[in-house]
Amino acid sequence: MSLIVQKFGGTSVGSIERIEGVADKIAAFKMQGHRVVAVVSAMSGETNRLVALAHEIQGRPVPREMDVLLSTGEQVTTALLSMALAKRGVKAKSYTGGQVKILTDDAHGKARIQHIEDTQLLSDLDAGFVTVVAGFQGVDPSGNITTLGRGGSDTTAVALAAALKADECQIYTDVDGVYTTDPRVVSSAQRLDRITFEEMLEMASMGSKVLQIRAVEFAGKYHVPLRVLHSFKEGPGTLISIEESNDVETPTIAGIAFTRDEAKLTVSGVPDMPGIAYRILGPVGDANIEIDVIVQNVGHDNTTDFTFTVARGDLARAEEILRAVADEIGATSVQSDSKIAKVSVVGVGMRSHAGVASQMFGALASVGINILMITTSEIKISVIIEEKFLELAVRSLHTAFGLDGDPVEE
Amino acid sequence: MSLIVQKFGGTSVGSIERIEGVADKIAAFKMQGHRVVAVVSAMSGETNRLVALAHEIQGRPVPREMDVLLSTGEQVTTALLSMALAKRGVKAKSYTGGQVKILTDDAHGKARIQHIEDTQLLSDLDAGFVTVVAGFQGVDPSGNITTLGRGGSDTTAVALAAALKADECQIYTDVDGVYTTDPRVVSSAQRLDRITFEEMLEMASMGSKVLQIRAVEFAGKYHVPLRVLHSFKEGPGTLISIEESNDVETPTIAGIAFTRDEAKLTVSGVPDMPGIAYRILGPVGDANIEIDVIVQNVGHDNTTDFTFTVARGDLARAEEILRAVADEIGATSVQSDSKIAKVSVVGVGMRSHAGVASQMFGALASVGINILMITTSEIKISVIIEEKFLELAVRSLHTAFGLDGDPVEE
Repeated sequence: MSLIVQKFGGTSVGSIERIEGVADKIAAFKMQGHRVVAVVSAMSGETNRLVALAHEIQGRPVPREMDVLLSTGEQVTTALLSMALAKRGVKAKSYTGGQVKILTDDAHGKARIQHIEDTQLLSDLDAGFVTVVAGFQGVDPSGNITTLGRGGSDTTAVALAAALKADECQIYTDVDGVYTTDPRVVSSAQRLDRITFEEMLEMASMGSKVLQIRAVEFAGKYHVPLRVLHSFKEGPGTLISIEESNDVETPTIAGIAFTRDEAKLTVSGVPDMPGIAYRILGPVGDANIEIDVIVQNVGHDNTTDFTFTVARGDLARAEEILRAVADEIGATSVQSDSKIAKVSVVGVGMRSHAGVASQMFGALASVGINILMITTSEIKISVIIEEKFLELAVRSLHTAFGLDGDPVEE
Repeated sequence: MSLIVQKFGGTSVGSIERIEGVADKIAAFKMQGHRVVAVVSAMSGETNRLVALAHEIQGRPVPREMDVLLSTGEQVTTALLSMALAKRGVKAKSYTGGQVKILTDDAHGKARIQHIEDTQLLSDLDAGFVTVVAGFQGVDPSGNITTLGRGGSDTTAVALAAALKADECQIYTDVDGVYTTDPRVVSSAQRLDRITFEEMLEMASMGSKVLQIRAVEFAGKYHVPLRVLHSFKEGPGTLISIEESNDVETPTIAGIAFTRDEAKLTVSGVPDMPGIAYRILGPVGDANIEIDVIVQNVGHDNTTDFTFTVARGDLARAEEILRAVADEIGATSVQSDSKIAKVSVVGVGMRSHAGVASQMFGALASVGINILMITTSEIKISVIIEEKFLELAVRSLHTAFGLDGDPVEE
């Protein structure tokens, strides 16, 4: 008899009809003999409704009170789901974050979980209850209600799974698993049966918005097996775990990730001297602009070119800062380019397989795509290319690394 | 510097605009140097919205979960009001029933308050905060959320005032005080400056729906001075307290109460023997039908007539029961009459003033109204009359007891 934490997001509980559907799903698991902890979000639209009420009063409402307000959204869902379970003859009991006691720090709106009391939950589970816990919320040491920030319900689920030593944490979403790449770009993209936490983090940070990054990190840290499943369709989903697949047939690469959200800045004719990178990037970082890929070319004539990428929304501000810096340090020019895209191949397999980089570059070259920048990590190689080549690049790499399956039916 | 508990009902906080109005009112009190505890209900309509969601799932939802669901309504208001106060530069802090800790028994949906922790509230009040408490809710000894039932916010306010030894508990409503009678019936009805708890109970139970009876009882028991005020108009309202007015000019009678909600049943030709009242009323009480006025006439020929009143909604059921009883005991007939009304004169003054009853009967006789039944208590005399005479009776008594003022402007 295993202990399973199941998390249902706002869309999955967006109406009474859907809540009844979730109750059916949980009841079926219970019938199979599992102990179930359900973690729920607010019904879709509810959080926005509450935010709108607060904003009628003030543009930036008191964070403590914002948390008191928003936390009611999940509380409503816990009560309704518990009722729907009771209607099916399944003993159920709702919990707010405070009732569980999910202890957090006091950073309202973005609190971090510090400890979870498991006594009451375990005793209710032993007594045969399905425990329905409000996601996204906790209490600080003084008993004030806190929230973990948007998407925090995933984190609640993983933290509960870790605290209760659950056998699996299942995240129900609107996709049926993690794919080798975005099926809207490559119709032959395949659902992965399993993926490692590290791979998932690299895939997620590139815009595969299946799971909150924090939740994946947390799950990895505490070795909680995570499974992504579809809320309304049957299927095994994708298991995210610490173990790599032992299957020799498994491709080296787990998937192809990509993003269009970046822009590129180049400072040319930079005097090539120690500390120059800091003088350029320091002011950008001070302005709270995150920098992603950085490339410094080998210098010639005692000058060098310095190129890096930022989120597209930060481009104008970053450019303004750089122009001032360029004047100061005597660089010749600043150029910007927002028509770029980043494409990455991700896979823990590349640790033990040589030649992934050359295979990647070869595949891109064979379709005539010019690489603007390259950056590598232990399990990922990313290239910056012109945005117009994005789809072509993703499709070519997907094929080159043997990821194509049968075209996905929509 | 006095400590004041102020309670605002659903209509008073029914929109963001109204919540801002309440915040203005509280801010003004705070500026005067008072310490303020605000108790709030759910925004009007919110409780019904939540009930409707639950009823989509089940006709009779699990009481524990119903309380979890409904308690979010007040919580939302506490957060919004605290934000509106902060916007005015007034330090404020919201509390759920569980956070205060308003300890109740575990009777979900109709819980009774057992104890209130005052430490945290008093320390926040001392630190200059307005504390905004969710009405209508508490927690049982196991930490489950409970509700006090509809209108329970009045009870929360009074209980808090008692626990904190507040100088006054102010209940903001849609009327500007307690009147000598319903101004819709008697345009010269006057607002009472003060009234005793006992008088208020007699007035309230007759349909003057200004305050919850439980809250008045509670206030009387713990000697909490209660004041009824209008949410949006200025004015002193009506003070409900233990002390009678010492003003010699004060009329003997506080007011004229009335109700149309009753119906009359008469069992005729009842054998006049011991225990007969029990044999008639026992089965009615067993059916959970409440009996109000009872009159047994002096018998003749060894039979008597037995008349009593019930709520109009219970008439059909009571009559059915009585016909069976009448057969058993050999009574001759059962008659019912729903076209009746009850009119009462209420006042602690009648304890020390003789002749109130004869003055009342005289006033009714002078306008030709026939009295069908009479019942008296220490501070109230009630008569049952034909419904068509109700307005005439109330107006005549209002004048006869010197209660007329200038006509009320609407």
